Amino acid sequence: MKHGESRFRVRYAETDQMGVVHHANYIIWFEQGRTDYMRKIGVNYADVERSGLFLAVGEVQIRYGAPARYDDEVRVLTRIDRVQSRAVTFAYEVLRADSDERLASGYTRLIAMDANGTARTLPRDLLQRFAEVMHATAS
Amino acid sequence: MKHGESRFRVRYAETDQMGVVHHANYIIWFEQGRTDYMRKIGVNYADVERSGLFLAVGEVQIRYGAPARYDDEVRVLTRIDRVQSRAVTFAYEVLRADSDERLASGYTRLIAMDANGTARTLPRDLLQRFAEVMHATAS
Amino acid sequence: MKHGESRFRVRYAETDQMGVVHHANYIIWFEQGRTDYMRKIGVNYADVERSGLFLAVGEVQIRYGAPARYDDEVRVLTRIDRVQSRAVTFAYEVLRADSDERLASGYTRLIAMDANGTARTLPRDLLQRFAEVMHATAS
Amino acid sequence: MKHGESRFRVRYAETDQMGVVHHANYIIWFEQGRTDYMRKIGVNYADVERSGLFLAVGEVQIRYGAPARYDDEVRVLTRIDRVQSRAVTFAYEVLRADSDERLASGYTRLIAMDANGTARTLPRDLLQRFAEVMHATAS
Repeated sequence: MKHGESRFRVRYAETDQMGVVHHANYIIWFEQGRTDYMRKIGVNYADVERSGLFLAVGEVQIRYGAPARYDDEVRVLTRIDRVQSRAVTFAYEVLRADSDERLASGYTRLIAMDANGTARTLPRDLLQRFAEVMHATAS
Repeated sequence: MKHGESRFRVRYAETDQMGVVHHANYIIWFEQGRTDYMRKIGVNYADVERSGLFLAVGEVQIRYGAPARYDDEVRVLTRIDRVQSRAVTFAYEVLRADSDERLASGYTRLIAMDANGTARTLPRDLLQRFAEVMHATAS
Repeated sequence: MKHGESRFRVRYAETDQMGVVHHANYIIWFEQGRTDYMRKIGVNYADVERSGLFLAVGEVQIRYGAPARYDDEVRVLTRIDRVQSRAVTFAYEVLRADSDERLASGYTRLIAMDANGTARTLPRDLLQRFAEVMHATAS
Repeated sequence: MKHGESRFRVRYAETDQMGVVHHANYIIWFEQGRTDYMRKIGVNYADVERSGLFLAVGEVQIRYGAPARYDDEVRVLTRIDRVQSRAVTFAYEVLRADSDERLASGYTRLIAMDANGTARTLPRDLLQRFAEVMHATAS
């Protein structure tokens, strides 16, 4: 099992007056990487929410490298870094597609919640799938 | 009854690499103007949604004037332009606060819907309040 | 010459508490459609800006149809609707990819400017390319 | 010298389909807190950029608490946490205004750069002002 990979171009609206991508957008790119990776490992997050389980972001960290610019093609590499009974942590690397230059790296820790925002445990099948994928990627 | 007025400063994240506010943000500013204006005329839109009525945007038009820049103070003037049994149209003007220079003007037409997205009529009290306010502003 | 076509999935961050895509995002999708279409007809907009020509949005109109939802695949169809010496108008249709249901349609009128925001005429080669493509798409 | 305080209401566009504020917006609120705080201590960041100095975000961390909802009034408390010759770190707390419930806390480390994105040292006057304010807030 390999990490996930999302690939897309920088949108004009994602730039700021410094002429580069505004740093808040990397959180959204992480999220896109996570959605794509979950689908790849057989977990459709839209269905997960419809089943009444919500993965809310409890913590995020980002370290920025080289700036991304409008129309650059970027790659987001996603993997699972840690699985707990009530939380799962995804780690990300964002690279410029043509040079593999590092644009950013970071993680988000997601907390399992029900529709009312109360913390709950992850369902057993999801927990096992996340753990399985994490071990396969690490080896 | 006067039009509504919202006042705030341009956020850095709202700029793009042209060095000015990205044009999509004006829709969000219109929405802020609308929320503030509705509160002023006694209609709390958060409560409206909790009651099961949703005002979904069916159409928007914006004409752009001078560009807004980071940290500029802007004013959004909001008024009701048209009231129909199933829809209400708000009109907006966005001005630079220190000079009254016109940054943008436009309107959004909102369609009354229930929680499932089915069109419905506006409740009588809301319809009357919107109509009353529209006439008072026009005169 | 056919219209342009961009294809991508709805991001989680693009939804709002109504459970559908927030209406401001369609402006950003129009922009992505325009960037992709310009590249397809041989005009790299990043290069255009580096040459000192800026196409600033002077007017936008959007009519909304069915709502788009998280993770839906959408298609943006882009074509050139009008070419003037100092402006070019692009028209867009946004469709749900699996059903061709119409999510939104609209246009943006772009004004040619120099780096200081002063209106100028479009360079002759760009004007000709836009006109050529518009006629080929119409026929 | 007290910390800075920004106060504003949650915008509808800032919510997502979980019915709460999307987590990426806190970065933008941090930035608003920073802009307001810098103005308060006599540093107009728009002028700083015009002088050729750019403070680019090199790292961000956010821990999320209770969710913020549409139209909630929030407060962002900002202070300077660390000053280095080429970097300054701001720390933030985001609170619900009516209850002081903690919505998020975090920091951003800003790197001094010139217009080309090359790291440089902070100008002496800015460095001194940041250090002075940091010590006054701590005591």
